Order: sequence, then structure tokens, then C-alpha cells
Amino acid sequence: MPAERDPAVLALDIGGTKLAAGVVRATGEIISQAEVPTLVQDGPEQSIRRLLELGERVQQEAGDPPLRAAGIACGGPLDTSTGRLLGPPNLPGWDDVPIVDIVAAHFSLPVSLENDGNAGMLAEHRFGAAREVNNAAYITLSSGVGGGVMLDGDLFHGQDGNAFEIGHLSVKFDGLPCKCGNLGCLETYASGNQLAARAQAALTAGEASSLRQLSKLTGKDVVAAAAAGDPLAVRLWTDTTAAVGSAVTSITHLFNPELITIGGGVSQAGDLLLQPVVNWLDRHAFAHLRRQVRVELTPLRRNMGVLSAAAVALRSLNGAN
Amino acid sequence: MPAERDPAVLALDIGGTKLAAGVVRATGEIISQAEVPTLVQDGPEQSIRRLLELGERVQQEAGDPPLRAAGIACGGPLDTSTGRLLGPPNLPGWDDVPIVDIVAAHFSLPVSLENDGNAGMLAEHRFGAAREVNNAAYITLSSGVGGGVMLDGDLFHGQDGNAFEIGHLSVKFDGLPCKCGNLGCLETYASGNQLAARAQAALTAGEASSLRQLSKLTGKDVVAAAAAGDPLAVRLWTDTTAAVGSAVTSITHLFNPELITIGGGVSQAGDLLLQPVVNWLDRHAFAHLRRQVRVELTPLRRNMGVLSAAAVALRSLNGAN
Repeated sequence: MPAERDPAVLALDIGGTKLAAGVVRATGEIISQAEVPTLVQDGPEQSIRRLLELGERVQQEAGDPPLRAAGIACGGPLDTSTGRLLGPPNLPGWDDVPIVDIVAAHFSLPVSLENDGNAGMLAEHRFGAAREVNNAAYITLSSGVGGGVMLDGDLFHGQDGNAFEIGHLSVKFDGLPCKCGNLGCLETYASGNQLAARAQAALTAGEASSLRQLSKLTGKDVVAAAAAGDPLAVRLWTDTTAAVGSAVTSITHLFNPELITIGGGVSQAGDLLLQPVVNWLDRHAFAHLRRQVRVELTPLRRNMGVLSAAAVALRSLNGAN
Repeated sequence: MPAERDPAVLALDIGGTKLAAGVVRATGEIISQAEVPTLVQDGPEQSIRRLLELGERVQQEAGDPPLRAAGIACGGPLDTSTGRLLGPPNLPGWDDVPIVDIVAAHFSLPVSLENDGNAGMLAEHRFGAAREVNNAAYITLSSGVGGGVMLDGDLFHGQDGNAFEIGHLSVKFDGLPCKCGNLGCLETYASGNQLAARAQAALTAGEASSLRQLSKLTGKDVVAAAAAGDPLAVRLWTDTTAAVGSAVTSITHLFNPELITIGGGVSQAGDLLLQPVVNWLDRHAFAHLRRQVRVELTPLRRNMGVLSAAAVALRSLNGAN
């Protein structure tokens, strides 16, 4: 039966910016996918209704193939054992939401939940740059910053599934305050939202910049202005790439991985991000650890959300961790 | 046979400041121990001769009990599989030294080698604060800074035994240059040597301080002056405790351990170190991860070197990693 050899799963990706759903085969073939904005002001109830509708829609668009499982990727903290979201900072009001039970009841499927950073690492391992790599890390630079790390072929969870909060690695102990309460978190330098917020603060303080012409500033605008040589944007982007370079160096020193991949919206900057990060690692990492690691942008790009959630569902079929 | 139930091992600890040897039982009872300064200017050949003599001496002082194995703890990088030291930064000239073969030939014992930070973690797990704790980290603040981390009861090695280089976690991406080539490494703020060097640099720059009366400044002098309220020493020590607090917070965010213990000469500052570090963690760590972790000073204190090397030897008898 082809359905058994290449089962299809329902993938649900819950982000602070968008909700995405897809039907994905074990090979990584995306049969259908769709997304809608999250509208955080709606709160969990309405948003979950829209997520369930989106799931139904992609099932229909895929031609209603038999589904074996559903996977959910969402920002932490969350409890994978009870299947509950525990108030992710990018989803205000989503406190103690039993998302696994809700999705399981609606679709009559076995459902697994994973932190989106960990799920991204699973997707890289199953479909992306980390295939056949057993010691790897994944960083997502998105509206927030997260990631996952794989040690000897197993995702590293820590005590309760919330380890590798790489967005809240402090890269500067006396640095910018992070909304999490820490100082100098990687997220404060490298998330798209914070890149825009740092630019906005500089404009408010009166700095000259081509960014002043724009009405609602995004991280993407700052990257574009940096590419065009705007001095303020270049300075902000240089801090971003230094912070990411420093974090990649620290990951190399702490975890000694074979591969570190970077995804998320900010990674669409491409070589403008990758080159300075690799240069930083070349200049600052221990030579014997530097030799053992490659740094790449994820090849999964815009499909990462759906493939992350699919990797969570497919893992449950394999009975792995 | 009591010798089988509680075997004795030879413990050899090679540090940049001192060489230590001991005969230790599996219970942690130290039958004998001795130490001599390392005299790094001697280079490896003479130093190893003195280490072997020290090993003979502690054997005799222990009454020549039957020994089952020897363990060596030394600063990395090193290759545990071939038993070679690969030029530790605190031991200039010790490049590619086959220390395991040398010690095995001299004492006719099976010999194991481990990075001193990892060995300290093993000692904490076997004899110290981390008994029956399976997710823990150990940081040593000594002439250099190192550590080890235990995940699900196994020491985490990375690809080749040199993971968890916590001394070279950057706590400030645009911070002080570290002799390793990185910027803002924990070691540049928190090692005893660097604490003294930072004080010396401030004195050379003309800052007023009670430290000016001292001829050869040590980290211990700076801690004592900070305790006495000397403004320069207080400022330097505040940076040290902030850097350690930030590193402990980052370890909590990345590894989600149950316990983090701190040892090494700088930890003899006691509550003057521990209190600000715990306060930093309270203020800056994610609440759900903070609740799961305790931070303590190692109870093994001055015996840590010998017990570290003993733990390496005893592990080899148990066949564990």
C-alpha cells in the first residue's frame, strides 16, 4: 500500500505572525498548504477555530488522502507530555491551552506537539540540510528567535522539553533589556521585530536615515536599507550579524556540532547574513572546533513551518523521541 | 575482598598552576594526596617526570594498596580516544603529548584521560553535590575557566570530547579580547588570572585603589579588596559576578539542568560569589526554567582536582562513558 510506505500527515504551525497548515507526505512532498495571519488580538479561541478551518481546507485541497497523524509546531514554553501551550510570549493570552486534545478531537487523529525550534531541527534532520547529520543545531531568526539541537541523533529536550532557548542566550550581559527579563538576549539583536524596534528607537532619537520615509518599519526594511548602504541600517545590521556570529561561536564551543543551520524570515537576507556570521566564526572560534562545523542557511526556507509540524507528526509514527 | 568492593585508584591532576596526585577509594576516601607547582617554564618533559614522582610518592604514603586504574584530569583540548594532550592554552609547549601511554607504561595500570571540566562534573556526580542528579552542569573558575555537563546521566562530550567549553562562552560579543581569539569570553571576566590582569590594567591606567600597595596581584587579592569595599575591586568583582550570573542563566536556558555547581579557586569567595550569581539568575532567567534549577558551590573544594582524576579512573572500572 503506497499510503503505508509514504503516509501523509496533517501539519499545523502556530506562529505569532501566521498560522499555517499543510498535508505532507513522509518524503517531504507538500501536497497542499495554506496560511492566514495570526491576529493575536483575537486570543486563542478564535485563532484556534481559524487554525482548525485551515486544517480542513488543506485536507480538502489535498484530495482527502488518508492521514496517519497530525503534528503541531508552536513557540514555547509548552508541555509536550500533556500537550498544552503554557503562555508563549508571542501569543498573549494562550495560557494553558490543551491544543493537542483540541486538534485530536477535531480531526480524530493522534497528535504530537513540539516547540517550533525543536520542530525546525527535526525538519532539517528529516528533509533539509541535516539529513544524516547526528550532531546539529538549528536557529530560527523570525519575529522571535528559537532553535533546537540534536545530539547523537536525538533531539535534546532537557528536563521537560524546553531546553535550547537559544533566543535567550545572552550575547551581552550588560546589553539591551529583553522582554523576557534578561539582558542582551540574542533575540534582542537578531529577531525581525527587534531589528525594526531598534531602528524605530534610533529614528525617534533623531538619527538620520532613509528608513525615516517608511510608515510601518519591518526587519526586512532594515535589511534592505543596510544592503543599500544606509549608515543607520548598516550599524544595526552589523550588531545583528555580530550577535548571531557570537551565538553560533558559543554553540560551537558548547555543543561541538557538525552543522548549524539558520532559518526564519531574517535568514532571507541570504549572504548578507551568512557571510558575516561565517567570518565571525572563522575569527573567533577554537580552531579544532571550527574545523568540525559547517554553517548554512536552511534549504527549507518558506516551507519550514509546515515541514516542521510534519516532522513532528512523522516522528510519532516512527516511535522515536 | 574489600579491595574489590572499594577499589583504590591513582588520581593525577595536571593544572596550569599545580600538579596534584592522590590515591583514592571508590567511596571517595582520599588515602593520600600531594601537590607541587607546575612550573610551566619547565615544559612537558620535566613536569611529567615530577608528576610521575608525585604519583609514586602518594602510592608509598598510602601504604602501597593494590591499584586498579589511574585517571588523569587536564585542561583541553585533548583527545580522549588516543590519550593525547593537544596543546592546552594553560600549558605552553604541551603539544601532542601521549600522556596516557606515558602514565600507563610507568605505573603498569590502565589509564583514562578526561578534560578537567568534564572530570569535575564526574566528581560532582560521584562524590559531590550532583549525586543522584542526572542533568547537571559544573563550572570551574580557576586560572582558566572550564566545565562539564551531564545529560540524562551521561557526560556530554560532543563529537570528540571537547564540548562544553564554557570558559569560551562569550558573555559579551563586543567585550574584552580573550587570549583564545574570541571576544568577551566568560574566562576574560571570571578566571582568577584575568581578574588579577584586569585589576593590573586599571592600576597601570592610573586608577586609585588599595590594590596598588601589593606587589604581585592575584585574583584572591581582588576578591579580598572587594570584600573590604575598595571601589576599583568592587567594580571588577561586580563584572565578574554579572558575567558568571549571565553564563549560569544561559546554561539554564540552553541545557535546562537540575543543578549547576561552581568550583575552582575563585569559588573560595563563597557567598560573595554565590549570592550575586543566584540574584542574577532570579532576576534574568525564564521563571519555568529557574524553578527547576539549583545553583551551589561545590562541596569538594580543595579536593576537587584529585577527586576529578579519581572519578575518571573509577568510571573506567564501571565501563561507563
